[in-house]
Amino acid sequence: MPEPLRLGIAGLGTVGTGVVRIVQTHAALIERRTGRQVVISAVSARSRTRNRAVDLSGYAWEDDPVALARREDVDVFVEVMGGSEGVAKAATEAAIAAGKDVVSANKALLAHHGQALAEAAEAKGHVIRFEAAVAGGIPVIKALTEGLAGNEIRRVMGVMNGTCNYILTRMESAGLPYDQVFEEARQLGYLEADPNLDVGGIDAGHKLSLLAAIAFGTRVSFDAVELEGIGRISIDDIRRAGDMGYKIKLLGVAQMTGRGLEQRMTPCLVPADSPLGQLHGGTNMVVLEGDSVGQIVLRGAGAGEGPTASAVLSDVIEIARGTRLSTFGQPAATLTEPVAARAAAPAPYYLRMELADKPGALAKVATVLGEEGISIDRMRQYAHADSTVAPVLIVTHKCTRDAVSHALSRLPATGVVLSEAVSIRIESV
Amino acid sequence: MPEPLRLGIAGLGTVGTGVVRIVQTHAALIERRTGRQVVISAVSARSRTRNRAVDLSGYAWEDDPVALARREDVDVFVEVMGGSEGVAKAATEAAIAAGKDVVSANKALLAHHGQALAEAAEAKGHVIRFEAAVAGGIPVIKALTEGLAGNEIRRVMGVMNGTCNYILTRMESAGLPYDQVFEEARQLGYLEADPNLDVGGIDAGHKLSLLAAIAFGTRVSFDAVELEGIGRISIDDIRRAGDMGYKIKLLGVAQMTGRGLEQRMTPCLVPADSPLGQLHGGTNMVVLEGDSVGQIVLRGAGAGEGPTASAVLSDVIEIARGTRLSTFGQPAATLTEPVAARAAAPAPYYLRMELADKPGALAKVATVLGEEGISIDRMRQYAHADSTVAPVLIVTHKCTRDAVSHALSRLPATGVVLSEAVSIRIESV
Repeated sequence: MPEPLRLGIAGLGTVGTGVVRIVQTHAALIERRTGRQVVISAVSARSRTRNRAVDLSGYAWEDDPVALARREDVDVFVEVMGGSEGVAKAATEAAIAAGKDVVSANKALLAHHGQALAEAAEAKGHVIRFEAAVAGGIPVIKALTEGLAGNEIRRVMGVMNGTCNYILTRMESAGLPYDQVFEEARQLGYLEADPNLDVGGIDAGHKLSLLAAIAFGTRVSFDAVELEGIGRISIDDIRRAGDMGYKIKLLGVAQMTGRGLEQRMTPCLVPADSPLGQLHGGTNMVVLEGDSVGQIVLRGAGAGEGPTASAVLSDVIEIARGTRLSTFGQPAATLTEPVAARAAAPAPYYLRMELADKPGALAKVATVLGEEGISIDRMRQYAHADSTVAPVLIVTHKCTRDAVSHALSRLPATGVVLSEAVSIRIESV
Repeated sequence: MPEPLRLGIAGLGTVGTGVVRIVQTHAALIERRTGRQVVISAVSARSRTRNRAVDLSGYAWEDDPVALARREDVDVFVEVMGGSEGVAKAATEAAIAAGKDVVSANKALLAHHGQALAEAAEAKGHVIRFEAAVAGGIPVIKALTEGLAGNEIRRVMGVMNGTCNYILTRMESAGLPYDQVFEEARQLGYLEADPNLDVGGIDAGHKLSLLAAIAFGTRVSFDAVELEGIGRISIDDIRRAGDMGYKIKLLGVAQMTGRGLEQRMTPCLVPADSPLGQLHGGTNMVVLEGDSVGQIVLRGAGAGEGPTASAVLSDVIEIARGTRLSTFGQPAATLTEPVAARAAAPAPYYLRMELADKPGALAKVATVLGEEGISIDRMRQYAHADSTVAPVLIVTHKCTRDAVSHALSRLPATGVVLSEAVSIRIESV
């Protein structure tokens, strides 16, 4: 029997507590599956006295995560604190410098500093694993890095922020406006301290950038992710999109195109009867497309104590079994600097506008669209109580976003469009 | 740079040809991801002259897969021939005896001989990997063995025979009877030479038994899988189940209960709006439930050249990266002999019968059900052109299958049930 694998756990919030709980309750199961014991040597958190409903008495305590990371009796530094800078970064760097393996749930840290951290770890023959950083309990890092390793990856998509998906599906099911559901989510504790991390798409964008690095063998480039949050999505658009057979999701898409690497985390329409369209509430979904395997869909809880701790444990068990993988599926030094695509690939767009209800109004809009090279796939005009305004929905054929933006900017001059037109990309899934 | 990893591929049907194609077209990508070259030394198949649209000229040819398995220049024996006995078994045994690692797509071989093969390989420090044997391109072996390794697995479910799911969804969408769609599937080449492997649930049962071994740390016990094919499913039941909000699937379920290990591959009703209920055509789906992670759903192509070859490559790449896992996630010698549950856990049942249209008929049926301890959740009686016969659907509350069987056996004696009553289990998903 090899020596026990000794963990140092930095962070005892929901996830850290969950990790402690699994290590304690499943010690025998883990030993059976790895051939060695997995034990906790030491822990660290901001408050030593907070009641966490797990017994920490058998572990050394460190006030400073950096000191924890350097301890002689720690083989694997488990970072479940969060934050892209500060102590999380310092402690992770210290762990690597001290020759430890690292298991991290910290998407922000890896999205900003993953390249440097991976190079440092790999130079010393140590690993950084981060299954818990993306889509909670869904083993998507493993599926992409290993399960689909024989594929050239074509596209990665995902609904990876459960709070946003909760807000959008709750708006639809309860017929409530964004602001009200946002407030509900806040009161339920679903939102980060800085809610823009959730509803601004930043958190999900971090995750997308990590998946893109593995998928395309490129350095993590979070700064190149096009980010748009869900704040402008109205209950009107959710309903109208539904009428046309679509759902609105905060959807991440990464694909390598002839024009470079495209990374977007933006509201999109997806077919209501697709797996992504059928995803309700806080559940996450990742779609992986490879040249041989076709489309693989993974669905599960994207957050919470159990699912996230399960992902941390899968990395710990991987290390305990002696598996040594590069952080991003190939040596970090071989990752290429991606060229960011300047614009998203062409797609159909959903357009919503309110027209003056008078003869020729629609013709004027159609003329503008036609002049910008946008052809109309489907159009629907709604009956209206107010006889001066006609709500109109248009689904276009594939066109560029530049064409849509340009056309929309010309609409006010027609004199028949009574409010700002809304456009949302329709992603083919 | 380490030495190249040298493959010997036994079988050049759809899957074997697909593996050759990926190794040839993605050589650089594989080398980047593994840090070494993956090359093919030799191949073997029944016919050397058949045109396979891949260039085999660079590889040695062996007429005998056993000779291939023993070649000095082969590190990994890739078995994509199929068949639980005969040459597939002999060649796999020869490969293990000769100290090779094995990558197999052969569910039948592993379901029947996996324990002996795994023990033999592990005694010599070699591995058997079989991602391609279960659910084609879906990386479910990896998800279960590694991604969920920190979980006590509660239940594994799956639609894992695309042909059966194709037949059932085609019956529904086209309104055609089983025999006709079966014949269609045969002509489309969707059926095995022995169609009972597909429609009898045997192929899917093999897959389930492999997942159960990993999930519960038990020896593969295919003989204990309760098997029932889809031959008795009528278009009437598909329609009536749909009326009640369900779809009929050939569903595999494995769970450890207080009464032992339950393994079933049988037609079941699942809610139409669940991921399993929304699965159409030949696609596969596997649902994994762990105590920490909750429910993880994996969806993808379960067969075909690209998806299955993708799964073979994931195993080859795992070996090329130096990862060494036990065949069933823990040493084969530590797998326990499972106690087979004598009967399925209680569940709601769907019952369909035709009643004589006369006063008191329904009361007589309800009395029999009540006397057997079966209570009714929902009941629907259909309008009928023929005034002497009333089609009736019943959804029961949870009850045992023994109770259902006993009740059904008593129905003819009531004198009001005009045809044999149909019962199908409703699985909570």
